[in-house]
Amino acid sequence: MIKANNPALKSWVEIPRNSDFTIQNLPFGIFKTQHRSPAAGVAIGNDILNLAYLHEHGYLEGLDLPAGIFHQPYLNEFFALGRSKIREVRERISELLQHDNNNLKENQTDRASALIAMRDVQMLLPVRIPNYTDFYSSEEHATNVGSMFRDPKNALLPNWKHLPVAYHGRASSIVVSGTDLHRPKGQIKPADSELPVYSPSRKLDFELEMAFITCGETKLGQPIHVHEAEEYIAGFVLFNDWSARDIQQWEYVPLGPFLGKNFGSTISPWVVTLDALEPFRVQGPEQYPHVLPYLSIEGARNFDIVLEVAMKAANTEEAIVCRSNFKYMYWNINQQLAHHTVNGCNIQVGDLYASGTISGPSPGSFGSLLELTWNGQKTLHLPDGSERTFILDGDTITMRGHALKDGVRIGFGECTGKILPALK
Amino acid sequence: MIKANNPALKSWVEIPRNSDFTIQNLPFGIFKTQHRSPAAGVAIGNDILNLAYLHEHGYLEGLDLPAGIFHQPYLNEFFALGRSKIREVRERISELLQHDNNNLKENQTDRASALIAMRDVQMLLPVRIPNYTDFYSSEEHATNVGSMFRDPKNALLPNWKHLPVAYHGRASSIVVSGTDLHRPKGQIKPADSELPVYSPSRKLDFELEMAFITCGETKLGQPIHVHEAEEYIAGFVLFNDWSARDIQQWEYVPLGPFLGKNFGSTISPWVVTLDALEPFRVQGPEQYPHVLPYLSIEGARNFDIVLEVAMKAANTEEAIVCRSNFKYMYWNINQQLAHHTVNGCNIQVGDLYASGTISGPSPGSFGSLLELTWNGQKTLHLPDGSERTFILDGDTITMRGHALKDGVRIGFGECTGKILPALK
Repeated sequence: MIKANNPALKSWVEIPRNSDFTIQNLPFGIFKTQHRSPAAGVAIGNDILNLAYLHEHGYLEGLDLPAGIFHQPYLNEFFALGRSKIREVRERISELLQHDNNNLKENQTDRASALIAMRDVQMLLPVRIPNYTDFYSSEEHATNVGSMFRDPKNALLPNWKHLPVAYHGRASSIVVSGTDLHRPKGQIKPADSELPVYSPSRKLDFELEMAFITCGETKLGQPIHVHEAEEYIAGFVLFNDWSARDIQQWEYVPLGPFLGKNFGSTISPWVVTLDALEPFRVQGPEQYPHVLPYLSIEGARNFDIVLEVAMKAANTEEAIVCRSNFKYMYWNINQQLAHHTVNGCNIQVGDLYASGTISGPSPGSFGSLLELTWNGQKTLHLPDGSERTFILDGDTITMRGHALKDGVRIGFGECTGKILPALK
Repeated sequence: MIKANNPALKSWVEIPRNSDFTIQNLPFGIFKTQHRSPAAGVAIGNDILNLAYLHEHGYLEGLDLPAGIFHQPYLNEFFALGRSKIREVRERISELLQHDNNNLKENQTDRASALIAMRDVQMLLPVRIPNYTDFYSSEEHATNVGSMFRDPKNALLPNWKHLPVAYHGRASSIVVSGTDLHRPKGQIKPADSELPVYSPSRKLDFELEMAFITCGETKLGQPIHVHEAEEYIAGFVLFNDWSARDIQQWEYVPLGPFLGKNFGSTISPWVVTLDALEPFRVQGPEQYPHVLPYLSIEGARNFDIVLEVAMKAANTEEAIVCRSNFKYMYWNINQQLAHHTVNGCNIQVGDLYASGTISGPSPGSFGSLLELTWNGQKTLHLPDGSERTFILDGDTITMRGHALKDGVRIGFGECTGKILPALK
C-alpha cells in the first residue's frame, strides 16, 4: 500500500479546485528560477516544492540520498536510484505536505524558501534522454492509418497483433512544453508533380501520445521479463509527436519515419510516477490472437487517463479537437519493454518510450489531424470561424491529461507548443 | 595545407610495415590501462601516445586546451572544441613524433610514461553517442536488397535517388570492437509457419559500414548547409551493423528496422580524422536525376578507403569474404548531414552517422551475407571446410579498412566481434 495515494489526505498547501497537482500526485520535474541554477522539484497546487532545498535542510533525512542529488539539471541521477527510492522520496514529501504535519508548515523561513510559485519558474526537460523509442500501440490509430493508406479490409499489417511495433526516434530534438517550433522544410512530392520539391511542410500534424521514462538500466544481452518491466519505469509524461505528413509520406519506405518526425517532439515537464497512477489501473483490451509467452501478462495493465488536445489559432479561444483515453492502448507498457529488450537491447536511465498515437473508437477520439480530418478530406472548425485540415502557422497545440477516481485527481499539466513560420 | 599529412614525414617511433597507424594518420581514441582511469590517446605504430600525460606535462602548451580535457572517459569534450582545435592538436602531435623533434624523444621519463604499448591497454568507446543514425547510401546495396525482396526491374524505390534514405538506430547498444555479442532472440515467422515463433535468430548477418562522428552541435531549427557539413565532422570509424534478417523481415513494415538491429552494433576504437583522409578524396558516382539545390555539391566528396570483411570460425583461419571500398557511396557525407538537418533537426557532439552497407559492383564486394549468399541461396566456404549462409555461433567477424596513396597508409584498425550462443 502506497500511503501517499490515500484519497483522504489533505495538504496545508492550498490546492485549487481541479488542480492537476493534488497531494496524491506529487510528480517530479526540473525547474529554474531567474537567479538560481536548475533543481529538482515536486508540483503541489500552484507551487513547486524545492527538493534541493529540502534535502540540504534535513527534511529528507534518513532516506540515504547522495549529496547534491536534487541540485542537478536533470532527474537522471535521482531516477538511477531506482523505483523504491523514488517511492520513499514521494512518501516523505507526502508526509511533509499533510495538513497536520507541522515540520515544514510551521517553519516560516524554510517554508518560504522551499515553496515557490509556479508562475515564477521556468520548467526544463525533466531528464537527459539517452534513447527515445516510439511505439505504435493503439489499434484504432493503426487501423485508421492502414485504412487510409492501404486497404480498409486489411488495415492492420500481419505483424501488428503479434508484437508491439516500434521504431527509434531522435532524442536530440525532444523539447519541453512551451518551446515553439518552426514549421519544418524538406522534400515532399505533391500528387500533381512528377518530381519531389523542396518546401515547407503543408501537412503539419500533432500526435497525442503518452511516454514512460525509465529509472533503471540493463546490461546488453539481458532481456527484461514482462513481469519485471514496471520496476524500470519511473513515470509518465504527455508527448506530442509532431509529424509532417507530406515529408513522412515521401521518405518513409522502406526504413520508416525520419525527417517527418525529428524536427521536434514535445513533452510535458512533470513526471507523474507510476506509483501515483496505481489507483487508476484498468484492464486493457482483450488480445487475440494470443501473444507469445514472453509477452503474456495478466491483470490491470492499462491506465484510465482522460486525454484531450486543444487547438488555438492566434488571438482566439482554443477548441478541443480530440478527447481520448490512455486506456485504449492495445499493447501495455510491460509488453512494450519486454519486447524492446527480448533481443538483448539494453535500456538506460532517462530513456523515453512513447506510446504511439492514442486514438479511441469514436471519430472525436482520434489522436491526430490525419485521422480527425481523414487526411484532409474533412475540416475542423475553430472558434474564430476558420477551418483546419492541418496545422497553420501561429497555431498552438496543447495536450492535457488527468486521472480521476474517488474524488482524487492526478493530472499531467500541459504539453504545449506553437508552430512558427518556416525559417527563411 | 595540413602539415601532418606530408607524405615525407618520418617518426622516431617505430612504425611496422603496413601499420594502420603511420605518422600521417594520428587517430584519436580512449584507452584504459589496468590501474588508471580512461584517457584520450593517439595511435602511432604499435603504441599509444597518452594525450592526458602530454597535456599535463606541457607538451601541448599554447593550444589553449581546458584542464583535464584528455582525462575523460569519452572524447566528447575534446571534440566539442571543434574541427580547428582538433586539427591543432593533431598538428602538434605530428610535430612531437617527427624523427628530428627531440622534445619528447629525448626525455626518457616522459617518453616512457607517455608512450604505451597497445597490447597493454583496453580500448573503450571513443565517444558517448547521444544520437545514432544509419543511412542507406550505397546504390549497389539498395539495388541488391530491392532485387531480392521486391522487383529486380524496379529495385530502387522512387525516393532513393532524390534523398539519402536513413533511419534512427539505437545508441545504447553500440559497443567497441572486441565486445562479444550473444545471438539475439525474438519473433521470427518461418516460411512454413502460419504464426510467428520465439526463437534465436537463424539469419544473423553483418553489415560493412563506415560512420562519421560529429564535433559540433546545432540549435533546433537550424539546418546545416551542404557546403558547411564537414566543419561538423571530426572523423570516421568502421561500423558493423549486425543484423538479424529474420527478426527484421517480420517486424520492419511499416516503421522500419528495430529489434533486427538494436541488439548490438560494433565500432572500431580509433577516430580517423577527416583531416587525415584529405589526400584520399575522390569523385563520387554521378548523380542522376539531379538532386535538389539543398543537396547539390561539387568536388571530390568521396574517400578511397579499401575495406574488407573477414569471417573466422572457432579454431581455424579467417577467410576474407568481402572486399569493398568506401568510394562507391552514392550519397556523400555532406549530403547526408545537409539532408538530416534540412527540417531543423539538431545535431550533438559525438553523434554517430553510419553510411549503410557499403557494397560495390562485383559480387565479391557485397557488404553483407544477405547479398553475398543472396539470402541463403549460395554458400560461402571457410578454410576449415565448413559452409556458411549466415553467421554461426562462435564465428568472429572482423572489418578492416585503409587508404593508401604516395606510399602513405592510413588505417582504421579493426572492428571485430564474436557471436556467442543465445542466452538461455
